Amino acid sequence: MIAEIIAVGSEMLTPHRQDTNSLYLTAALNDLGVEVAFKTIVGDNLGHLTSAAKIAIERADIIVFSGGLGPTEDDLTREAAAAALGIGLRRDPAVLTALYKRYAARQIVMPLNNAKQADILDGAMLLENKNGSAPGQFLDTTVTGADGQTHRKIIILLPGPPSELKPLFDETCEHCLAGHLPPRHLARRTLRMALIPESQVDARTAPIYKRYADVETTILAGHAEIQLHFLSAKATLAEARTRVDEVTEEIEREMDDAIFSGQGESLEEVVLLMLGMRHLTLATAESCTGGLLAERLTAVPNSSSAFIGGAVVYTPELKTIMTGVPKETIDEKGAVSEEVARGLAEGIRARTGASIGVSITGLAGPGGGTSGPDAQKPIGRVYIGIADGRQTQVKEINLTGNRERIRYWASQHALELIRRNLL
Amino acid sequence: MIAEIIAVGSEMLTPHRQDTNSLYLTAALNDLGVEVAFKTIVGDNLGHLTSAAKIAIERADIIVFSGGLGPTEDDLTREAAAAALGIGLRRDPAVLTALYKRYAARQIVMPLNNAKQADILDGAMLLENKNGSAPGQFLDTTVTGADGQTHRKIIILLPGPPSELKPLFDETCEHCLAGHLPPRHLARRTLRMALIPESQVDARTAPIYKRYADVETTILAGHAEIQLHFLSAKATLAEARTRVDEVTEEIEREMDDAIFSGQGESLEEVVLLMLGMRHLTLATAESCTGGLLAERLTAVPNSSSAFIGGAVVYTPELKTIMTGVPKETIDEKGAVSEEVARGLAEGIRARTGASIGVSITGLAGPGGGTSGPDAQKPIGRVYIGIADGRQTQVKEINLTGNRERIRYWASQHALELIRRNLL
Repeated sequence: MIAEIIAVGSEMLTPHRQDTNSLYLTAALNDLGVEVAFKTIVGDNLGHLTSAAKIAIERADIIVFSGGLGPTEDDLTREAAAAALGIGLRRDPAVLTALYKRYAARQIVMPLNNAKQADILDGAMLLENKNGSAPGQFLDTTVTGADGQTHRKIIILLPGPPSELKPLFDETCEHCLAGHLPPRHLARRTLRMALIPESQVDARTAPIYKRYADVETTILAGHAEIQLHFLSAKATLAEARTRVDEVTEEIEREMDDAIFSGQGESLEEVVLLMLGMRHLTLATAESCTGGLLAERLTAVPNSSSAFIGGAVVYTPELKTIMTGVPKETIDEKGAVSEEVARGLAEGIRARTGASIGVSITGLAGPGGGTSGPDAQKPIGRVYIGIADGRQTQVKEINLTGNRERIRYWASQHALELIRRNLL
Repeated sequence: MIAEIIAVGSEMLTPHRQDTNSLYLTAALNDLGVEVAFKTIVGDNLGHLTSAAKIAIERADIIVFSGGLGPTEDDLTREAAAAALGIGLRRDPAVLTALYKRYAARQIVMPLNNAKQADILDGAMLLENKNGSAPGQFLDTTVTGADGQTHRKIIILLPGPPSELKPLFDETCEHCLAGHLPPRHLARRTLRMALIPESQVDARTAPIYKRYADVETTILAGHAEIQLHFLSAKATLAEARTRVDEVTEEIEREMDDAIFSGQGESLEEVVLLMLGMRHLTLATAESCTGGLLAERLTAVPNSSSAFIGGAVVYTPELKTIMTGVPKETIDEKGAVSEEVARGLAEGIRARTGASIGVSITGLAGPGGGTSGPDAQKPIGRVYIGIADGRQTQVKEINLTGNRERIRYWASQHALELIRRNLL
């Protein structure tokens, strides 16, 4: 069984908007054992849409339309699907009544064109839309192909707004579709690692996961981390879980403490959890990252139990004012130096009373250090300090890429340094 | 002339990866006066790809393929395009030599399958790829359609990696394509506004831009700002510029100081520029945004000339330690209060010696204030303070949405408040 997703809407043929529903739908279809073989994006044009629908009905078994179910003249998915299948549309009285009620509740007279949202493909089942006015539709039918043979086709019409499409698919459509497909149970796990090159992860893990031909393994790299996704589909859930557990356990042994998360948590969440478990608090002093580390930590709900705050010390003067790093140290060694990183980490810890102080100072570019000792240092040079009252450790790293990348990787290095210190 | 973009690659039919080249290509094609009518995403499957190519050649005038030009067995775009057109491929000796040289330079023997990157569609022109091994191809040809008529078609093959596709398109392909299309000169302007509802912008500006039928106007909403894009295409550049200037001037008069940028700068950049022009410095004290405001400001290169830094005061204790807000004020009024916002703004200004101190304190959710006076306040309640030494102003705002949205909008309100104070 292969599927085609047709995303309908002229806005997705502009440089400004992109179809994103298909990522969600692909994940959901894959979970049901259905492969997506084609995606088509087509505008609000009856001719184009009807021909795209015909092509999809010819080449795929399951055709999922998203969008074009609204009340306007531009909403043509119902008409195009009917024309492509050579069937009619009937106006459903129950849907029509619901539409009138919807408007009456807001004390507005329903514009006449809204009635078309009650038009249903002949033989289709309605899929209730709790978050919008146009219901989805599910049609299980047969068509005569170009080969003269009869083929079974499933046609699904879904509303375009993600806030309507996702719950509708989850609550009704998925169940309908599953009833037409062989039963299947899925288990999945994700292992996450920071700052390791993808090639190294692959070299070390491929010999393991390749022995599990029945577990689908995907390596995703990006944002200074590598994710290994494992998926097993079996006749029973227990069987699927066993296989995923087996492969992840072997890989956890191989990659050991490089893995920061085996249940999907982000690096920020893991660091906050580890701090919380040890009843420790954290404060930050950031120069080149300018608040990014604090922002990432506080983006996690309830982070205030472990992260108390810190300082953004963007100028040399602020480093002295906010964390007490002596002006002489900055003048002599440069703001981007091991000594200043040390002073920032120790200073912010002392000022705030946190258990752990962490600092970041570096050259994020595009310009380098303009004068004094920093003028010699390359863009991408970053020092990260961590002070816990017993000892202070400073790590020098040298990053590549643009300002945004250097800042993000610096914050990731700081989080990973905290995590490794807490292990 | 209508175009179809075919993105080739099985990874784009998974839930993890999305075609993004088509956004870039759509912008570039639109600039040349070509409308994109279809996008197709197809995997590395010769049958699927050939049939998709045939369909595109039937329904579009310009067909742009991205991806599938590499050296592996999965790279099938050349073969599929040739099969769909019913033409042959010839191995280009110059490209082959260049490939051998590329490998020789790295002292590696070229694997045999790499030679297929030198296979060129009969009659196609090569487009040099300075950033990768596979060249692009440009074919201007005629085909006999299903209607029995002869139709002119332009077939373009581009490498998939954006770092290869974009420069290749800009440097060679665009020029080739422009030579086949009517001459056209473009002028564009973008006006940006923060925190205004899209409906209000549209109600006030539509009566103006609708009178300029020859200027294409696009309203984009998102990230707590509205952008109005204007595009004019004319026979001469002067003519195009005049029309865009006319409509933007009228809209600037209507929207007045709601417009923060008429040349594309971000709100952060505008605030930093305004501070710099007035020789003023800024410091921030952030509670619920946890460093987001500082991070946004420091993401702008050279921001340190106006933004000096600040504090992230995530717990009540840090508010007292870092900015001197009395503990009694926090206990009595709550950390999320007008009084604390005032104290934070004044305190960070005094501590850092900045000309302007700005503060943000609020409830970003998902949990509300747990005890004391904050327990009564709704999630989304935020106070923003601004102190300049002469006076301190505090603004109460009430935001909706999730934690991420509330934090972002709060930082946007703070930036807009600074800008309005500097006007």
